Amino acid sequence: MYAVIIAGGIGKRFWPRSRRERPKQLLDIVDGASMLQMTYERLKQLTDEKKIYIITGQSLKDCILKNLKDFSEKNIIVEPSGKNTAPAIGLATTLIMAKDPQAVIGIFPSDHLIRDLAEFKKAINEGFRFASDHNALVTFGIKPTRPATGYGYIQFDKNSKVGEGGVYKVKTFAEKPNLETAQRFLESGEFFWNSGMFIWRGSNIMNAYKLLLPEIYENLKIIGESFGNPEYEAVLKRQWSSIHSVSVDYGIMEKAKNVYVVAGKFDWSDVGSWDAVYELQTKDAHGNVAIGNVFTLNTTNSYLYSRKNLIAAVGVSDLIVVQSKDAILITRRGSSEQVKEIVDWLEREKKSEYL
Amino acid sequence: MYAVIIAGGIGKRFWPRSRRERPKQLLDIVDGASMLQMTYERLKQLTDEKKIYIITGQSLKDCILKNLKDFSEKNIIVEPSGKNTAPAIGLATTLIMAKDPQAVIGIFPSDHLIRDLAEFKKAINEGFRFASDHNALVTFGIKPTRPATGYGYIQFDKNSKVGEGGVYKVKTFAEKPNLETAQRFLESGEFFWNSGMFIWRGSNIMNAYKLLLPEIYENLKIIGESFGNPEYEAVLKRQWSSIHSVSVDYGIMEKAKNVYVVAGKFDWSDVGSWDAVYELQTKDAHGNVAIGNVFTLNTTNSYLYSRKNLIAAVGVSDLIVVQSKDAILITRRGSSEQVKEIVDWLEREKKSEYL
Repeated sequence: MYAVIIAGGIGKRFWPRSRRERPKQLLDIVDGASMLQMTYERLKQLTDEKKIYIITGQSLKDCILKNLKDFSEKNIIVEPSGKNTAPAIGLATTLIMAKDPQAVIGIFPSDHLIRDLAEFKKAINEGFRFASDHNALVTFGIKPTRPATGYGYIQFDKNSKVGEGGVYKVKTFAEKPNLETAQRFLESGEFFWNSGMFIWRGSNIMNAYKLLLPEIYENLKIIGESFGNPEYEAVLKRQWSSIHSVSVDYGIMEKAKNVYVVAGKFDWSDVGSWDAVYELQTKDAHGNVAIGNVFTLNTTNSYLYSRKNLIAAVGVSDLIVVQSKDAILITRRGSSEQVKEIVDWLEREKKSEYL
Repeated sequence: MYAVIIAGGIGKRFWPRSRRERPKQLLDIVDGASMLQMTYERLKQLTDEKKIYIITGQSLKDCILKNLKDFSEKNIIVEPSGKNTAPAIGLATTLIMAKDPQAVIGIFPSDHLIRDLAEFKKAINEGFRFASDHNALVTFGIKPTRPATGYGYIQFDKNSKVGEGGVYKVKTFAEKPNLETAQRFLESGEFFWNSGMFIWRGSNIMNAYKLLLPEIYENLKIIGESFGNPEYEAVLKRQWSSIHSVSVDYGIMEKAKNVYVVAGKFDWSDVGSWDAVYELQTKDAHGNVAIGNVFTLNTTNSYLYSRKNLIAAVGVSDLIVVQSKDAILITRRGSSEQVKEIVDWLEREKKSEYL
């Protein structure tokens, strides 16, 4: 199996720790390592590290190489600009297939948390076998444990179970639902959370691009033909500029006919906010998660983080306080979704020192 | 009138802004100037600046001279160590009387807020006249506007009014009361808040020391006799080491017979906590006081201060957040009395970098 880790994107939700040059996947936000490091370590258990690629933007390349000490620079694919997941995945697939036209390729976000390695391996292996043997685009679903409104959902055909562990035919993809709809999804037993991971033969996904995103397919074909030639960089840049932004979910998965889902039994979180970080950590006797230089007195159920300056919290509850470099976030638990509005404001005000 | 500003002491309640070398009176906590600066400016309206003295500790001397650009170093009296107010006032009185045995001396804390200069001047002038003409120890009372439990009280004899503005014979001093007692004080109409300001003839207060604090009186006499001689510093140091700590309220005022109180009609606050600072400031439309590098979103009724690092507060209410140098305080409004417990903890843990 080839593996492509998608590591682009700017994390607005983890400001002030996430900055332009250090998005979410590069932060040790949970479990003492970056989520990119943990993603890479998981994949090394499944395949040869030479077959693991990372696709990202130029601005993150150095930071990624610093973060993954043993990762080969050759295996970083740099996209000229962020164009969402369909072009990124298409580019990585094109370059891998230029070397190995028979490649079976898994696609893995770099910023999700998975702790149960045994079940993860089982699911990926099952997906790999299914994708190897069939003309199938395989996704990985997670059985929902609550009516989450922050995740996309996959509806599957209960009666279509293939194989032992559980691969199902996908009926539809659903965007993030409201609470009522999420409740209905949960009760129906026909929906998984969409983990954003995929596995397929390179030839099968490129056929899907040809059919469903024909313009991008043409751009990628030209890029692929120049691969290994001196003009490659110039061709990539030129073709990339005319590619439109589109997600692989919207552009391919929601429209393709041959989509299947593996029922993943591993835990999974996209760690979408400081609230999620608090939930995922072990609390002390007062319900606090206090990391670094923190003093608390009569303080409960709060997340407090500072690597340098002292945070002294007295008589407060249900707060999220994050000190990083030259900025401090103070928000109420349950409000941390609003953190991205701070980043929007900083951008509007051109306060680039904090971005 | 001679004026002595008492500017010793360590402010624990304004951590992290107040530090060992920068206590409350040296901070621009309200109205854009330090309370020492405002105290000095008020007194310059009442007397010749050559007659204004400051008594403080060695560690604050340089900071005071920086804070008061036009203050003469000669007029700073340095006490070898903090021994509460009775020795400090005694020392200042001794040194002033060595030059002018007829001196009438006012005593003024450096860390109280008074905004109504006209009424302040009226009260001080009335106290000055009364103290000049009588063998009296004169205090200044403030008519209470609420049953404050954080202030001391002065009970006066309603039927003893002397003069036009209102000077009364003092019956008793009362320590900080509980709420019930404070309520009773308020309703009785016989109590003022104790502003901690005094005025008296030097000869009268020294007679009171002789009677009520005879040991300290003897120490001061020896210090006074050496004043102007080469051995003064050594004598001061030696005598001072055997002086016991005692407040002028407890040591003199509560026991002396000839104590009077001027009914001050000016506003007055001892600005005892961050809560008081919030109360004393003008709020924006959301009830916030935001000073310096602060961004707020859906934030109400909070005090937010940072001169350097950005504080971004989102979805919070009723908080006090103060960033200063290498530390951040986060507390709930109404809990700011507990701030001194942080300083106690820092002292116990020997974290002197934050003190």
